[in-house]
Amino acid sequence: MTITRRLGIVGVGLMGGSVGLAARRSGQFDAILGYDASLSALQQATARGCIDQACPNLAELARSCDTIVIAAPVNLVADLVTQVAAVAPPETLLTDTGSTKERIVRNVESLLPADRLFVGSHPLCGSEKHGPEAARGDLFDGRLVLLTPTPRTTPPAVARASEFWQRLGGRVQSLSPQEHDRVLALTSHLPHLAASALASLLPSEWRAFVANGFRDTTRLASGDPALWAAILNDNAPRLAPVIQQLQARLDEFRSALETGDTAALLRLLADAKGIRDDLGS
Amino acid sequence: MTITRRLGIVGVGLMGGSVGLAARRSGQFDAILGYDASLSALQQATARGCIDQACPNLAELARSCDTIVIAAPVNLVADLVTQVAAVAPPETLLTDTGSTKERIVRNVESLLPADRLFVGSHPLCGSEKHGPEAARGDLFDGRLVLLTPTPRTTPPAVARASEFWQRLGGRVQSLSPQEHDRVLALTSHLPHLAASALASLLPSEWRAFVANGFRDTTRLASGDPALWAAILNDNAPRLAPVIQQLQARLDEFRSALETGDTAALLRLLADAKGIRDDLGS
Repeated sequence: MTITRRLGIVGVGLMGGSVGLAARRSGQFDAILGYDASLSALQQATARGCIDQACPNLAELARSCDTIVIAAPVNLVADLVTQVAAVAPPETLLTDTGSTKERIVRNVESLLPADRLFVGSHPLCGSEKHGPEAARGDLFDGRLVLLTPTPRTTPPAVARASEFWQRLGGRVQSLSPQEHDRVLALTSHLPHLAASALASLLPSEWRAFVANGFRDTTRLASGDPALWAAILNDNAPRLAPVIQQLQARLDEFRSALETGDTAALLRLLADAKGIRDDLGS
Repeated sequence: MTITRRLGIVGVGLMGGSVGLAARRSGQFDAILGYDASLSALQQATARGCIDQACPNLAELARSCDTIVIAAPVNLVADLVTQVAAVAPPETLLTDTGSTKERIVRNVESLLPADRLFVGSHPLCGSEKHGPEAARGDLFDGRLVLLTPTPRTTPPAVARASEFWQRLGGRVQSLSPQEHDRVLALTSHLPHLAASALASLLPSEWRAFVANGFRDTTRLASGDPALWAAILNDNAPRLAPVIQQLQARLDEFRSALETGDTAALLRLLADAKGIRDDLGS
Protein backbone atom coordinates (compact mmCIF):
# COMPACT_ATOMS: atom_id res chain seq x y z
CA MET A 1 0.00 0.00 0.00
CA THR A 2 1.27 3.47 -0.87
CA ILE A 3 2.26 5.50 2.14
CA THR A 4 0.31 8.74 1.77
CA ARG A 5 2.19 11.91 2.52
CA ARG A 6 0.42 14.86 0.95
CA LEU A 7 -3.31 15.44 1.30
CA GLY A 8 -5.23 17.69 -1.08
CA ILE A 9 -8.65 19.05 -0.11
CA VAL A 10 -10.85 20.55 -2.82
CA GLY A 11 -13.49 22.70 -1.14
CA VAL A 12 -12.59 23.85 2.35
CA GLY A 13 -16.02 24.41 3.91
CA LEU A 14 -17.35 22.70 7.01
CA MET A 15 -16.63 19.23 5.62
CA GLY A 16 -13.35 19.88 3.82
CA GLY A 17 -12.07 22.04 6.64
CA SER A 18 -12.89 19.30 9.15
CA VAL A 19 -11.08 16.74 6.96
CA GLY A 20 -8.03 19.00 7.20
CA LEU A 21 -8.21 19.44 10.97
CA ALA A 22 -8.77 15.72 11.57
CA ALA A 23 -6.02 14.77 9.11
CA ARG A 24 -3.58 17.08 10.87
CA ARG A 25 -4.52 15.51 14.20
CA SER A 26 -3.98 12.03 12.74
CA GLY A 27 -0.40 12.84 11.81
CA GLN A 28 -0.58 10.76 8.61
CA PHE A 29 0.41 13.58 6.23
CA ASP A 30 3.49 15.73 5.80
CA ALA A 31 1.45 18.50 4.22
CA ILE A 32 -2.21 19.40 3.75
CA LEU A 33 -3.06 21.48 0.68
CA GLY A 34 -6.36 23.20 0.02
CA TYR A 35 -8.16 24.64 -2.99
CA ASP A 36 -11.45 26.49 -3.03
CA ALA A 37 -13.23 28.67 -5.58
CA SER A 38 -13.80 31.12 -2.73
CA LEU A 39 -10.66 32.99 -1.79
CA SER A 40 -12.10 34.03 1.58
CA ALA A 41 -12.90 30.40 2.45
CA LEU A 42 -9.32 29.51 1.55
CA GLN A 43 -7.99 32.29 3.76
CA GLN A 44 -10.20 31.29 6.68
CA ALA A 45 -9.25 27.63 6.30
CA THR A 46 -5.56 28.58 6.40
CA ALA A 47 -6.10 30.86 9.40
CA ARG A 48 -7.92 28.11 11.28
CA GLY A 49 -5.20 25.57 10.52
CA CYS A 50 -7.46 23.37 8.38
CA ILE A 51 -4.78 23.44 5.64
CA ASP A 52 -1.05 24.15 5.59
CA GLN A 53 -1.05 25.69 2.19
CA ALA A 54 -3.65 27.34 -0.03
CA CYS A 55 -3.24 26.40 -3.70
CA PRO A 56 -4.07 29.12 -6.21
CA ASN A 57 -5.20 26.58 -8.77
CA LEU A 58 -6.63 23.09 -8.83
CA ALA A 59 -4.00 21.57 -11.13
CA GLU A 60 -1.16 22.51 -8.82
CA LEU A 61 -2.89 20.77 -5.92
CA ALA A 62 -3.74 17.74 -8.06
CA ARG A 63 -0.16 17.28 -9.30
CA SER A 64 1.40 17.18 -5.86
CA CYS A 65 -0.92 15.10 -3.65
CA ASP A 66 -1.25 11.35 -3.17
CA THR A 67 -4.67 11.56 -1.50
CA ILE A 68 -7.27 14.03 -2.74
CA VAL A 69 -10.69 14.61 -1.18
CA ILE A 70 -13.33 16.50 -3.14
CA ALA A 71 -15.54 18.19 -0.54
CA ALA A 72 -17.67 20.27 -2.89
CA PRO A 73 -21.43 20.61 -3.54
CA VAL A 74 -22.72 17.36 -5.08
CA ASN A 75 -23.43 18.94 -8.46
CA LEU A 76 -19.75 19.85 -8.85
CA VAL A 77 -18.10 16.67 -7.54
CA ALA A 78 -17.90 14.55 -10.71
CA ASP A 79 -16.40 17.38 -12.79
CA LEU A 80 -13.86 18.18 -10.10
CA VAL A 81 -12.81 14.52 -9.77
CA THR A 82 -12.30 14.40 -13.52
CA GLN A 83 -10.29 17.62 -13.59
CA VAL A 84 -8.11 16.44 -10.73
CA ALA A 85 -7.60 12.99 -12.27
CA ALA A 86 -6.40 14.56 -15.52
CA VAL A 87 -3.22 15.83 -13.84
CA ALA A 88 -2.81 13.79 -10.63
CA PRO A 89 -0.16 11.01 -10.43
CA PRO A 90 -1.63 7.58 -11.28
CA GLU A 91 -1.23 6.26 -7.73
CA THR A 92 -3.22 9.16 -6.20
CA LEU A 93 -6.31 8.11 -4.25
CA LEU A 94 -9.37 10.16 -5.21
CA THR A 95 -12.48 10.34 -3.09
CA ASP A 96 -15.27 12.76 -2.20
CA THR A 97 -17.70 13.56 0.59
CA GLY A 98 -20.93 14.02 -1.36
CA SER A 99 -24.29 13.31 0.28
CA THR A 100 -25.54 11.51 -2.83
CA LYS A 101 -23.59 8.82 -4.61
CA GLU A 102 -25.28 7.10 -7.55
CA ARG A 103 -25.06 9.94 -10.09
CA ILE A 104 -21.64 11.09 -8.90
CA VAL A 105 -20.08 7.63 -9.08
CA ARG A 106 -21.72 6.83 -12.44
CA ASN A 107 -20.47 10.10 -13.94
CA VAL A 108 -16.98 9.71 -12.53
CA GLU A 109 -16.71 6.14 -13.80
CA SER A 110 -17.91 7.13 -17.25
CA LEU A 111 -15.24 9.85 -17.45
CA LEU A 112 -12.27 8.27 -15.66
CA PRO A 113 -9.85 5.63 -16.98
CA ALA A 114 -10.54 2.32 -15.23
CA ASP A 115 -7.11 2.20 -13.58
CA ARG A 116 -7.63 5.40 -11.58
CA LEU A 117 -8.04 4.93 -7.83
CA PHE A 118 -11.45 6.39 -7.10
CA VAL A 119 -14.03 5.41 -4.52
CA GLY A 120 -17.01 7.47 -3.38
CA SER A 121 -17.25 8.40 0.32
CA HIS A 122 -19.93 9.96 2.49
CA PRO A 123 -19.22 10.81 6.13
CA LEU A 124 -22.54 10.82 8.01
CA CYS A 125 -21.84 13.91 10.06
CA GLY A 126 -23.23 16.92 8.32
CA SER A 127 -24.53 20.00 10.04
CA GLU A 128 -26.87 22.87 9.31
CA LYS A 129 -23.77 25.06 9.65
CA HIS A 130 -21.29 25.68 6.86
CA GLY A 131 -17.97 27.27 6.00
CA PRO A 132 -14.47 26.65 7.36
CA GLU A 133 -15.32 28.59 10.53
CA ALA A 134 -17.61 25.67 11.48
CA ALA A 135 -14.96 22.99 10.80
CA ARG A 136 -14.08 20.67 13.69
CA GLY A 137 -11.18 18.25 14.07
CA ASP A 138 -13.40 15.77 15.93
CA LEU A 139 -16.23 15.86 13.38
CA PHE A 140 -15.63 12.26 12.28
CA ASP A 141 -14.94 10.71 15.68
CA GLY A 142 -17.06 7.59 15.99
CA ARG A 143 -19.16 8.59 12.96
CA LEU A 144 -20.00 6.27 10.14
CA VAL A 145 -18.31 6.94 6.80
CA LEU A 146 -19.98 5.11 3.94
CA LEU A 147 -17.81 3.98 1.03
CA THR A 148 -19.60 3.20 -2.21
CA PRO A 149 -17.40 0.90 -4.30
CA THR A 150 -18.70 -0.58 -7.56
CA PRO A 151 -17.60 -3.70 -9.44
CA ARG A 152 -15.03 -1.45 -11.12
CA THR A 153 -13.51 -0.11 -7.90
CA THR A 154 -10.12 -1.67 -7.13
CA PRO A 155 -9.47 -3.25 -3.71
CA PRO A 156 -6.47 -0.91 -3.06
CA ALA A 157 -8.71 2.13 -3.50
CA VAL A 158 -11.18 0.78 -0.93
CA ALA A 159 -8.39 -0.22 1.46
CA ARG A 160 -6.70 3.17 1.29
CA ALA A 161 -9.94 5.11 1.64
CA SER A 162 -10.93 2.95 4.61
CA GLU A 163 -7.63 3.56 6.33
CA PHE A 164 -7.82 7.29 5.57
CA TRP A 165 -11.24 7.74 7.20
CA GLN A 166 -10.44 5.48 10.11
CA ARG A 167 -7.37 7.56 10.93
CA LEU A 168 -9.63 10.62 10.88
CA GLY A 169 -11.72 8.96 13.59
CA GLY A 170 -14.49 7.43 11.47
CA ARG A 171 -16.00 3.96 11.27
CA VAL A 172 -16.18 2.66 7.71
CA GLN A 173 -18.84 0.59 5.97
CA SER A 174 -19.42 -0.12 2.27
CA LEU A 175 -22.70 0.10 0.39
CA SER A 176 -23.39 0.20 -3.33
CA PRO A 177 -24.08 3.74 -4.63
CA GLN A 178 -27.68 2.72 -5.30
CA GLU A 179 -28.23 1.31 -1.82
CA HIS A 180 -26.56 4.38 -0.33
CA ASP A 181 -28.98 6.72 -2.08
CA ARG A 182 -31.97 4.58 -1.15
CA VAL A 183 -31.01 4.63 2.55
CA LEU A 184 -30.08 8.32 2.64
CA ALA A 185 -33.33 9.36 0.96
CA LEU A 186 -35.09 8.24 4.13
CA THR A 187 -32.49 8.87 6.84
CA SER A 188 -31.22 12.27 5.68
CA HIS A 189 -32.93 13.84 2.68
CA LEU A 190 -36.52 13.29 3.85
CA PRO A 191 -35.79 14.69 7.36
CA HIS A 192 -34.29 17.79 5.74
CA LEU A 193 -37.34 18.25 3.57
CA ALA A 194 -39.76 17.58 6.46
CA ALA A 195 -37.91 20.09 8.64
CA SER A 196 -38.10 22.70 5.88
CA ALA A 197 -41.78 22.05 5.20
CA LEU A 198 -42.63 22.35 8.89
CA ALA A 199 -40.54 25.51 9.44
CA SER A 200 -42.12 27.15 6.42
CA LEU A 201 -45.61 26.97 7.99
CA LEU A 202 -44.76 29.21 10.95
CA PRO A 203 -46.33 32.69 10.68
CA SER A 204 -43.93 35.42 11.77
CA GLU A 205 -46.27 36.62 14.52
CA TRP A 206 -46.10 33.19 16.18
CA ARG A 207 -42.31 32.95 16.41
CA ALA A 208 -42.36 34.03 20.07
CA PHE A 209 -44.39 30.91 20.92
CA VAL A 210 -41.84 28.42 19.62
CA ALA A 211 -40.10 26.18 22.14
CA ASN A 212 -37.35 23.57 21.92
CA GLY A 213 -39.54 20.92 20.31
CA PHE A 214 -40.16 23.03 17.21
CA ARG A 215 -36.49 24.09 17.18
CA ASP A 216 -35.21 20.51 17.23
CA THR A 217 -37.68 19.29 14.65
CA THR A 218 -36.85 22.09 12.21
CA ARG A 219 -33.11 22.51 12.88
CA LEU A 220 -32.11 21.04 9.50
CA ALA A 221 -34.07 23.75 7.69
CA SER A 222 -31.16 26.14 8.39
CA GLY A 223 -28.97 24.22 5.96
CA ASP A 224 -27.65 26.00 2.89
CA PRO A 225 -30.46 26.07 0.26
CA ALA A 226 -28.15 25.73 -2.78
CA LEU A 227 -26.24 22.77 -1.33
CA TRP A 228 -29.47 21.05 -0.36
CA ALA A 229 -31.33 21.78 -3.58
CA ALA A 230 -28.49 19.98 -5.39
CA ILE A 231 -28.65 17.00 -3.01
CA LEU A 232 -32.43 16.70 -3.14
CA ASN A 233 -32.48 17.07 -6.94
CA ASP A 234 -29.78 14.42 -7.29
CA ASN A 235 -31.82 11.94 -5.30
CA ALA A 236 -35.27 13.00 -6.54
CA PRO A 237 -36.27 9.57 -7.95
CA ARG A 238 -35.77 7.93 -4.54
CA LEU A 239 -36.97 10.90 -2.51
CA ALA A 240 -40.39 11.34 -4.12
CA PRO A 241 -41.64 7.90 -2.96
CA VAL A 242 -40.54 8.44 0.64
CA ILE A 243 -42.25 11.85 0.71
CA GLN A 244 -45.40 9.95 -0.23
CA GLN A 245 -44.74 7.43 2.56
CA LEU A 246 -44.52 10.29 5.04
CA GLN A 247 -47.70 11.84 3.70
CA ALA A 248 -49.48 8.49 4.01
CA ARG A 249 -48.34 8.10 7.60
CA LEU A 250 -49.58 11.63 8.34
CA ASP A 251 -52.92 10.54 6.85
CA GLU A 252 -53.04 7.69 9.35
CA PHE A 253 -52.49 10.13 12.22
CA ARG A 254 -55.09 12.51 10.86
CA SER A 255 -57.62 9.73 10.38
CA ALA A 256 -57.07 8.49 13.96
CA LEU A 257 -57.64 12.04 15.24
CA GLU A 258 -60.69 12.75 13.09
CA THR A 259 -62.40 9.49 14.02
CA GLY A 260 -61.37 9.68 17.68
CA ASP A 261 -59.62 6.32 17.36
CA THR A 262 -57.41 6.62 20.44
CA ALA A 263 -56.19 3.03 20.19
CA ALA A 264 -54.84 3.68 16.69
CA LEU A 265 -53.28 6.97 17.79
CA LEU A 266 -51.60 5.30 20.76
CA ARG A 267 -50.28 2.53 18.53
CA LEU A 268 -48.81 5.01 16.02
CA LEU A 269 -47.15 7.02 18.80
CA ALA A 270 -45.86 3.92 20.60
CA ASP A 271 -44.40 2.41 17.42
CA ALA A 272 -42.57 5.66 16.66
CA LYS A 273 -41.32 5.95 20.23
CA GLY A 274 -39.94 2.40 20.13
CA ILE A 275 -37.95 3.18 16.98
CA ARG A 276 -36.76 6.59 18.21
CA ASP A 277 -35.77 5.37 21.68
CA ASP A 278 -33.50 2.77 20.07
CA LEU A 279 -31.56 5.52 18.30
CA GLY A 280 -30.42 7.15 21.57
CA SER A 281 -29.95 10.84 22.15
CA MET B 1 -52.76 40.41 47.05
CA THR B 2 -52.59 37.31 49.22
CA ILE B 3 -49.10 36.40 50.28
CA THR B 4 -48.75 32.77 49.28
CA ARG B 5 -47.11 30.46 51.77
CA ARG B 6 -47.94 26.85 50.95
CA LEU B 7 -47.70 25.40 47.47
CA GLY B 8 -49.49 22.21 46.47
CA ILE B 9 -48.41 20.27 43.37
CA VAL B 10 -50.74 17.65 41.96
CA GLY B 11 -48.72 15.34 39.72
CA VAL B 12 -44.99 15.35 40.45
CA GLY B 13 -43.56 14.27 37.07
CA LEU B 14 -41.10 16.28 34.98
CA MET B 15 -43.32 19.37 35.02
CA GLY B 16 -44.69 19.19 38.56
CA GLY B 17 -41.30 18.20 39.97
CA SER B 18 -39.67 21.13 38.19
CA VAL B 19 -42.35 23.49 39.58
CA GLY B 20 -41.34 22.24 43.03
CA LEU B 21 -37.60 22.69 42.50
CA ALA B 22 -38.05 26.15 40.97
CA ALA B 23 -40.49 27.19 43.70
CA ARG B 24 -38.06 26.09 46.41
CA ARG B 25 -35.31 28.09 44.71
CA SER B 26 -37.60 31.15 44.56
CA GLY B 27 -38.07 31.12 48.33
CA GLN B 28 -41.70 32.26 48.04
CA PHE B 29 -43.19 29.32 49.98
CA ASP B 30 -42.85 28.02 53.52
CA ALA B 31 -43.77 24.52 52.43
CA ILE B 32 -44.22 22.57 49.17
CA LEU B 33 -46.66 19.69 49.25
CA GLY B 34 -47.06 17.04 46.56
CA TYR B 35 -49.69 14.52 45.56
CA ASP B 36 -49.42 11.89 42.84
CA ALA B 37 -51.39 8.77 41.97
CA SER B 38 -48.02 7.01 41.68
CA LEU B 39 -46.44 6.31 45.05
CA SER B 40 -43.02 5.79 43.49
CA ALA B 41 -43.19 9.17 41.72
CA LEU B 42 -44.08 10.74 45.08
CA GLN B 43 -41.13 9.03 46.76
CA GLN B 44 -38.73 10.08 44.00
CA ALA B 45 -40.00 13.66 44.07
CA THR B 46 -39.44 13.77 47.84
CA ALA B 47 -35.99 12.22 47.54
CA ARG B 48 -34.99 14.75 44.87
CA GLY B 49 -36.24 17.66 46.94
CA CYS B 50 -39.03 18.61 44.51
CA ILE B 51 -41.48 18.60 47.43
CA ASP B 52 -41.10 18.90 51.19
CA GLN B 53 -43.97 16.64 52.01
CA ALA B 54 -45.84 13.88 50.18
CA CYS B 55 -49.57 13.98 50.82
CA PRO B 56 -51.33 10.62 51.00
CA ASN B 57 -54.54 12.09 49.59
CA LEU B 58 -55.60 14.95 47.39
CA ALA B 59 -58.07 16.51 49.85
CA GLU B 60 -55.41 16.95 52.51
CA LEU B 61 -53.21 18.81 50.04
CA ALA B 62 -56.11 20.90 48.78
CA ARG B 63 -57.21 21.98 52.27
CA SER B 64 -53.84 23.30 53.33
CA CYS B 65 -52.40 25.16 50.30
CA ASP B 66 -52.95 28.68 49.02
CA THR B 67 -51.48 27.99 45.58
CA ILE B 68 -52.17 24.70 43.83
CA VAL B 69 -50.72 23.63 40.47
CA ILE B 70 -52.28 20.70 38.65
CA ALA B 71 -49.45 19.15 36.60
CA ALA B 72 -51.28 16.09 35.34
CA PRO B 73 -52.04 14.61 31.89
CA VAL B 74 -54.46 16.93 30.05
CA ASN B 75 -57.33 14.44 30.16
CA LEU B 76 -57.25 14.49 33.99
CA VAL B 77 -56.73 18.20 34.65
CA ALA B 78 -60.32 19.48 34.71
CA ASP B 79 -61.48 16.73 37.10
CA LEU B 80 -58.54 17.31 39.41
CA VAL B 81 -59.14 21.08 39.50
CA THR B 82 -62.76 20.43 40.43
CA GLN B 83 -61.85 17.93 43.16
CA VAL B 84 -59.28 20.31 44.60
CA ALA B 85 -61.64 23.28 44.45
CA ALA B 86 -64.28 21.36 46.40
CA VAL B 87 -62.15 21.43 49.55
CA ALA B 88 -59.55 24.21 49.05
CA PRO B 89 -59.95 27.55 50.90
CA PRO B 90 -61.77 30.16 48.78
CA GLU B 91 -58.66 32.35 48.39
CA THR B 92 -56.56 29.49 46.99
CA LEU B 93 -55.15 30.13 43.51
CA LEU B 94 -55.71 27.17 41.18
CA THR B 95 -53.79 26.69 37.96
CA ASP B 96 -52.49 23.89 35.76
CA THR B 97 -49.71 23.17 33.25
CA GLY B 98 -51.66 21.39 30.51
CA SER B 99 -50.47 21.57 26.89
CA THR B 100 -54.02 22.18 25.66
CA LYS B 101 -56.32 24.77 27.10
CA GLU B 102 -59.70 25.24 25.45
CA ARG B 103 -61.37 22.03 26.64
CA ILE B 104 -59.74 22.16 30.07
CA VAL B 105 -60.71 25.77 30.76
CA ARG B 106 -64.25 25.26 29.41
CA ASN B 107 -64.76 22.19 31.57
CA VAL B 108 -63.31 23.81 34.67
CA GLU B 109 -65.45 26.91 34.25
CA SER B 110 -68.58 24.83 33.76
CA LEU B 111 -67.89 22.95 37.00
CA LEU B 112 -66.41 25.63 39.26
CA PRO B 113 -68.25 28.44 41.12
CA ALA B 114 -67.48 31.77 39.43
CA ASP B 115 -65.73 33.17 42.49
CA ARG B 116 -62.96 30.55 42.53
CA LEU B 117 -59.53 31.77 41.53
CA PHE B 118 -58.62 29.67 38.49
CA VAL B 119 -56.54 30.53 35.45
CA GLY B 120 -55.08 28.09 32.94
CA SER B 121 -51.29 28.05 32.48
CA HIS B 122 -48.95 26.40 30.00
CA PRO B 123 -45.18 26.66 30.44
CA LEU B 124 -43.58 26.22 26.99
CA CYS B 125 -40.76 23.99 28.16
CA GLY B 126 -41.73 20.39 27.78
CA SER B 127 -39.34 17.59 27.04
CA GLU B 128 -39.42 14.12 25.59
CA LYS B 129 -38.31 12.97 29.06
CA HIS B 130 -40.70 12.39 31.92
CA GLY B 131 -40.90 11.60 35.61
CA PRO B 132 -39.55 13.45 38.67
CA GLU B 133 -36.02 12.16 37.93
CA ALA B 134 -36.01 14.51 34.88
CA ALA B 135 -37.22 17.54 36.89
CA ARG B 136 -35.00 20.64 36.84
CA GLY B 137 -35.09 23.74 38.97
CA ASP B 138 -34.11 25.90 36.01
CA LEU B 139 -36.70 24.47 33.62
CA PHE B 140 -38.67 27.73 33.47
CA ASP B 141 -35.76 30.16 33.33
CA GLY B 142 -36.41 32.59 30.50
CA ARG B 143 -39.17 30.38 29.09
CA LEU B 144 -42.56 31.66 28.07
CA VAL B 145 -45.50 30.68 30.29
CA LEU B 146 -48.84 31.25 28.60
CA LEU B 147 -51.80 32.18 30.78
CA THR B 148 -55.26 31.67 29.28
CA PRO B 149 -57.73 33.90 31.10
CA THR B 150 -61.33 34.16 29.91
CA PRO B 151 -63.91 36.92 30.47
CA ARG B 152 -64.78 35.08 33.69
CA THR B 153 -61.23 35.03 35.06
CA THR B 154 -60.69 37.54 37.87
CA PRO B 155 -57.79 40.03 37.67
CA PRO B 156 -56.36 38.79 41.02
CA ALA B 157 -56.13 35.25 39.66
CA VAL B 158 -54.15 36.48 36.63
CA ALA B 159 -51.95 38.73 38.77
CA ARG B 160 -51.12 35.96 41.24
CA ALA B 161 -50.46 33.37 38.55
CA SER B 162 -48.22 35.85 36.69
CA GLU B 163 -46.22 36.56 39.80
CA PHE B 164 -45.97 32.83 40.63
CA TRP B 165 -44.50 31.89 37.24
CA GLN B 166 -42.23 34.92 37.08
CA ARG B 167 -40.73 33.99 40.45
CA LEU B 168 -40.10 30.53 39.02
CA GLY B 169 -38.04 32.16 36.26
CA GLY B 170 -40.64 32.33 33.49
CA ARG B 171 -41.86 35.13 31.23
CA VAL B 172 -45.61 35.45 31.20
CA GLN B 173 -48.01 36.26 28.35
CA SER B 174 -51.77 35.90 28.10
CA LEU B 175 -53.75 34.37 25.23
CA SER B 176 -57.34 33.20 25.07
CA PRO B 177 -57.69 29.41 25.42
CA GLN B 178 -58.83 29.25 21.78
CA GLU B 179 -55.88 31.23 20.47
CA HIS B 180 -53.53 29.17 22.63
CA ASP B 181 -54.76 25.93 21.10
CA ARG B 182 -54.59 27.35 17.58
CA VAL B 183 -50.97 28.43 18.05
CA LEU B 184 -49.86 25.27 19.83
CA ALA B 185 -51.41 23.04 17.15
CA LEU B 186 -48.76 24.36 14.80
CA THR B 187 -45.83 25.12 17.11
CA SER B 188 -45.96 22.00 19.28
CA HIS B 189 -48.55 19.38 18.40
CA LEU B 190 -47.79 19.22 14.67
CA PRO B 191 -44.00 18.93 15.25
CA HIS B 192 -44.65 16.05 17.64
CA LEU B 193 -46.81 14.30 15.10
CA ALA B 194 -44.36 14.97 12.24
CA ALA B 195 -41.47 13.64 14.34
CA SER B 196 -43.45 10.50 15.13
CA ALA B 197 -44.50 9.97 11.52
CA LEU B 198 -40.92 10.33 10.31
CA ALA B 199 -39.44 8.08 13.01
CA SER B 200 -42.01 5.40 12.26
CA LEU B 201 -40.77 5.04 8.67
CA LEU B 202 -37.27 3.86 9.64
CA PRO B 203 -36.71 0.14 8.98
CA SER B 204 -34.78 -1.53 11.81
CA GLU B 205 -31.95 -2.59 9.47
CA TRP B 206 -31.25 1.06 8.63
CA ARG B 207 -30.86 2.32 12.20
CA ALA B 208 -27.07 2.18 11.92
CA PHE B 209 -27.21 4.77 9.11
CA VAL B 210 -28.94 7.43 11.16
CA ALA B 211 -27.01 10.61 11.97
CA ASN B 212 -27.75 13.71 14.05
CA GLY B 213 -30.13 15.22 11.51
CA PHE B 214 -32.58 12.34 11.79
CA ARG B 215 -32.11 12.30 15.58
CA ASP B 216 -32.93 16.01 15.96
CA THR B 217 -35.89 15.88 13.61
CA THR B 218 -37.44 12.89 15.40
CA ARG B 219 -36.46 13.64 19.03
CA LEU B 220 -40.04 14.50 20.05
CA ALA B 221 -41.18 11.00 19.05
CA SER B 222 -39.70 9.71 22.32
CA GLY B 223 -42.42 11.51 24.29
CA ASP B 224 -44.82 9.45 26.38
CA PRO B 225 -47.51 8.04 24.02
CA ALA B 226 -50.36 8.21 26.54
CA LEU B 227 -49.63 11.84 27.50
CA TRP B 228 -49.36 12.82 23.85
CA ALA B 229 -52.40 10.89 22.64
CA ALA B 230 -54.42 12.88 25.17
CA ILE B 231 -52.92 16.19 24.01
CA LEU B 232 -53.37 15.45 20.30
CA ASN B 233 -56.92 14.19 20.83
CA ASP B 234 -57.79 17.28 22.85
CA ASN B 235 -56.67 19.54 20.02
CA ALA B 236 -57.79 17.33 17.11
CA PRO B 237 -60.11 19.94 15.51
CA ARG B 238 -57.21 22.42 15.16
CA LEU B 239 -54.57 19.80 14.46
CA ALA B 240 -56.21 18.12 11.48
CA PRO B 241 -56.08 21.26 9.29
CA VAL B 242 -52.40 21.92 10.03
CA ILE B 243 -51.55 18.30 9.20
CA GLN B 244 -53.16 19.01 5.83
CA GLN B 245 -51.10 22.20 5.50
CA LEU B 246 -47.94 20.19 6.10
CA GLN B 247 -49.00 17.58 3.56
CA ALA B 248 -49.71 20.30 1.00
CA ARG B 249 -46.26 21.83 1.56
CA LEU B 250 -44.71 18.39 1.12
CA ASP B 251 -46.63 18.16 -2.16
CA GLU B 252 -44.99 21.39 -3.30
CA PHE B 253 -41.55 19.97 -2.53
CA ARG B 254 -42.40 16.72 -4.30
CA SER B 255 -43.74 18.53 -7.34
CA ALA B 256 -40.60 20.69 -7.57
CA LEU B 257 -38.47 17.53 -7.42
CA GLU B 258 -40.52 15.56 -9.91
CA THR B 259 -40.60 18.37 -12.47
CA GLY B 260 -36.96 19.34 -11.88
CA ASP B 261 -38.05 22.86 -10.97
CA THR B 262 -34.88 23.90 -9.17
CA ALA B 263 -35.99 27.53 -8.83
CA ALA B 264 -39.11 26.43 -6.92
CA LEU B 265 -37.08 24.03 -4.78
CA LEU B 266 -34.57 26.74 -3.93
CA ARG B 267 -37.37 29.15 -3.04
CA LEU B 268 -39.02 26.61 -0.72
CA LEU B 269 -35.72 25.85 1.02
CA ALA B 270 -34.72 29.51 1.30
CA ASP B 271 -38.11 30.54 2.75
CA ALA B 272 -37.85 27.81 5.37
CA LYS B 273 -34.26 28.73 6.20
CA GLY B 274 -35.22 32.38 6.69
CA ILE B 275 -37.90 31.42 9.19
CA ARG B 276 -35.76 28.84 10.99
CA ASP B 277 -32.68 31.06 11.23
CA ASP B 278 -34.77 33.71 13.00
CA LEU B 279 -35.64 31.23 15.75
CA GLY B 280 -32.00 30.78 16.81
CA SER B 281 -30.45 27.59 18.09
